[in-house]
Amino acid sequence: MTLTGNMLIGQQSVTGHRPAFRGIDPATNQALEPQYAGASAEQVEQACALAWAAQDAYRETSLSARAAFLESIAEHIDNLGDELIERAHAETGLPRARLEGERGRTCQQLRLFARTVRAGEWLDVRVDHAQPQRQPLPRSDLRQRQIALGPVAVFGASNFPLAFSVAGGDTAAALAAGCPVIVKAHSAHPGTSELVGRAVAQAVKACALPEGVFSLLFDSGYEVGIALVSDWRIKAAGFTGSRTGGLALMKAAQARPEPIPVYAEMSSINPVLLFPAALENRAQALAEGFVASLTLGAGQFCTNPGLLIARKSPALDGFLSAVAELIPRSAAQTMLTPGIFGAYQAGVTALQDNPRARAVAVGQVGSGANQCQTHVFNTEAADFLADQRLQAEVFGATSLVVHCSSDEEIRQVCEYLEGQLTATLHLDDADLALARTLLPTLERKAGRLLVNGWPTGVEVCDAMVHGGPYPATSDARCTSVGTAAILRFMRPVCYQDFPDSLLPTALQQTNPLNLRRLLDGHREATRHGE
Amino acid sequence: MTLTGNMLIGQQSVTGHRPAFRGIDPATNQALEPQYAGASAEQVEQACALAWAAQDAYRETSLSARAAFLESIAEHIDNLGDELIERAHAETGLPRARLEGERGRTCQQLRLFARTVRAGEWLDVRVDHAQPQRQPLPRSDLRQRQIALGPVAVFGASNFPLAFSVAGGDTAAALAAGCPVIVKAHSAHPGTSELVGRAVAQAVKACALPEGVFSLLFDSGYEVGIALVSDWRIKAAGFTGSRTGGLALMKAAQARPEPIPVYAEMSSINPVLLFPAALENRAQALAEGFVASLTLGAGQFCTNPGLLIARKSPALDGFLSAVAELIPRSAAQTMLTPGIFGAYQAGVTALQDNPRARAVAVGQVGSGANQCQTHVFNTEAADFLADQRLQAEVFGATSLVVHCSSDEEIRQVCEYLEGQLTATLHLDDADLALARTLLPTLERKAGRLLVNGWPTGVEVCDAMVHGGPYPATSDARCTSVGTAAILRFMRPVCYQDFPDSLLPTALQQTNPLNLRRLLDGHREATRHGE
Repeated sequence: MTLTGNMLIGQQSVTGHRPAFRGIDPATNQALEPQYAGASAEQVEQACALAWAAQDAYRETSLSARAAFLESIAEHIDNLGDELIERAHAETGLPRARLEGERGRTCQQLRLFARTVRAGEWLDVRVDHAQPQRQPLPRSDLRQRQIALGPVAVFGASNFPLAFSVAGGDTAAALAAGCPVIVKAHSAHPGTSELVGRAVAQAVKACALPEGVFSLLFDSGYEVGIALVSDWRIKAAGFTGSRTGGLALMKAAQARPEPIPVYAEMSSINPVLLFPAALENRAQALAEGFVASLTLGAGQFCTNPGLLIARKSPALDGFLSAVAELIPRSAAQTMLTPGIFGAYQAGVTALQDNPRARAVAVGQVGSGANQCQTHVFNTEAADFLADQRLQAEVFGATSLVVHCSSDEEIRQVCEYLEGQLTATLHLDDADLALARTLLPTLERKAGRLLVNGWPTGVEVCDAMVHGGPYPATSDARCTSVGTAAILRFMRPVCYQDFPDSLLPTALQQTNPLNLRRLLDGHREATRHGE
Repeated sequence: MTLTGNMLIGQQSVTGHRPAFRGIDPATNQALEPQYAGASAEQVEQACALAWAAQDAYRETSLSARAAFLESIAEHIDNLGDELIERAHAETGLPRARLEGERGRTCQQLRLFARTVRAGEWLDVRVDHAQPQRQPLPRSDLRQRQIALGPVAVFGASNFPLAFSVAGGDTAAALAAGCPVIVKAHSAHPGTSELVGRAVAQAVKACALPEGVFSLLFDSGYEVGIALVSDWRIKAAGFTGSRTGGLALMKAAQARPEPIPVYAEMSSINPVLLFPAALENRAQALAEGFVASLTLGAGQFCTNPGLLIARKSPALDGFLSAVAELIPRSAAQTMLTPGIFGAYQAGVTALQDNPRARAVAVGQVGSGANQCQTHVFNTEAADFLADQRLQAEVFGATSLVVHCSSDEEIRQVCEYLEGQLTATLHLDDADLALARTLLPTLERKAGRLLVNGWPTGVEVCDAMVHGGPYPATSDARCTSVGTAAILRFMRPVCYQDFPDSLLPTALQQTNPLNLRRLLDGHREATRHGE
């Protein structure tokens, strides 16, 4: 397959009408061919019109047809073979093995949503039968299901060119819910986006779906994204990126005549609490685990451990000594884009210039372009509590250790934190009592709590929550990873006294989809065929 | 019980520090004793601080304890006896029988949420067991549950002094979810609010819950409401009222450093489609049903049928003739407040002054204060499509009939509508084909679709949706009536690799709450004891 530099408006491969840009190899700062021209306002409109026209038919596709479509996307992505990995490597600097793993995750994610679609639980079918004899008033027959919100705008993320981009979690969840998707590709990996976009478009065609189910637009700036979120036909948006970007989309979505939900996953420093007994018993192992998690992928994960919290003790000193020995051995790694590298450098400089932060350790200096040098700083809890800048996310391999004088100060620091994607507790049995006192606070602060692990590594499964209170995300009521992500793109509709022939299949009296309905107040226990 | 004019800050009965107001008997325009002083900023702060302090303990109450609390509230409301009905009647002008019915509904609603709490499905427990042998990477143990959002501000509604006020649907749902509630009473029925507020506070005490679980504040203006929604401790708000009020709350909620969800149910004209065969077969019965629904409670329902849509035909003319015969017999009814009466008069005048609307029928003139005269207008579809003002809600017993020249024009009118709480289809078998073509549009426009009924009358049950696309509500993803309303006040939290002793009860390995969990991708089929 040869890259064309074209976007996809439905099944049409179209050259953009706005200024063009190229992908950049961050390891060399070399521009990559071909060029990608940005979508014009008219082209955004065309994609929205196609999505709008497709929505009613697409949201009523059978569960099996929709599941097969998701599986077909996965198959078409698998079929892209090495070309996809090569191009993604060139555009992101991410190692091939990582990208192969991410491709596997992306396809597994699509297949997991296919399983979820087939099971149909997300339809949340509720049936309350009529009670014509009820006094003082009879009850109508009432049935509820969830339907798709409508066309969804999805924004590709810089740090996951596959799993959080064109056919990533937001796209998979929205398509699973029955929503057409228009992707605004991330400008850092347009070639990767084109390849995956074509795979999706091929799946649309192979499954004989309306072409408006999927479009892919390019843009090197913000215009297309804002235009998409502002278009009246778009009913929700999914975004993973910076707080600035997320807030701009939230603002545009709220300024519409009809506001829409924006699911923006924005920033998190992922506090890690090192409890006294754990530190006492295994400071070296904790230091090794910390450094590995901190430096993984040059720290370019939403769940990177950017903050450590511990009570002062000789064991904490031992932990820091171990960190100070390990970090200088950590190699510099190429960051995703020159822009991300620049922001990282600025974040590090801000900490270096802040008299409240002290350097603990510094990693190796890079020899190539855009290379991330690891940094660990520390500070006193009182300083941390006094300076909001110390909890600003530094996207990359930098972390800050907060030294607390008491358990109460640990609690204060936790209570002071902004909303987070994750909070981690390293603890031994002797720490359980203290951990229990902190849990209520941590539950209020984060979407995922981990014990004795590291927050990097987000499993795609039913129980995952990749979300959390603002500003970790714009909407703590949901997750952007895992099968519960489908719930973001649905709304309930109630059907009262409908004749069976007019009811959607999911609600018909014979329960043709074999759903476990909430029937007259009781959950149906059995499902045919299981 | 003697009314005190005091608000409730937790268990404390406190006189407000801001200017006082009185309830007004709308039938006489007489002020009622006692006076109710508004809450000062400090008093709002106190209520928020108490709610904040109560939240962690309250959200971890056992399912049985929380259910018993909801039932205790219902019992204490029942125990208020006739004093409640008398006071509500004096403050709202609503007939005693209606208020007795509303009290029954309010208490049944609390008991239904108690049942829902005990069943525990809303915890949405998901367990993915560890897979230590998985290649290439092991999987952690991951468990998800829903937890309460935090303190919730609830706004009493003018038109349901019991079912949508102090202990109404929003309060019941938030308390069921584990959220402390601070109610801002509607200024139209402060005495009713005090009585019900005391019943809730007594239940808090009887159940030995932290006092901050419930507070009740008064205010005759907007300050307390805006202060509540702006307070950092408040994590969500529930509102039923005007679009102006709802939009003001949404704006305040978005302007906070941490935006919060506002569930505002604002305005709806509840389109009713009269299909050709139905009109042909039973124009007289439809006219009778329409007039009864239109004039019920002086039209002061969110679901009042404010818009009829039909294709021109002799049968439609017959329907209108029947309406024109029935309406003049409809008695004027006292409206809830002088303010609502004034707004109704202004809305009617706007239609009378609009050359695109023609009067079809007018009800009887009132003899007392604040009496609502019924009005029916009609217009051509082309005029309706050309003048946005014709779909403005007139809160009260006024409706507009839109005459369409073709099925396509019916579709255009439906597609042109703003978001609605309900859409109604009156149809016979011969109309099914046409109805099927309109359903996709109506599903996108409304939260509840009815066949051959009238939209007034909102059943409290599992399958109800009292919600809908903007501007019917601020958030189409949920309902404010029915047990699904609990989902508005929750967010998911994931627990990774937690030792069993540190897990919340709902997630422990032995499943002590007997929940039907989503376990390794499969829904558990059985529940102990069923």
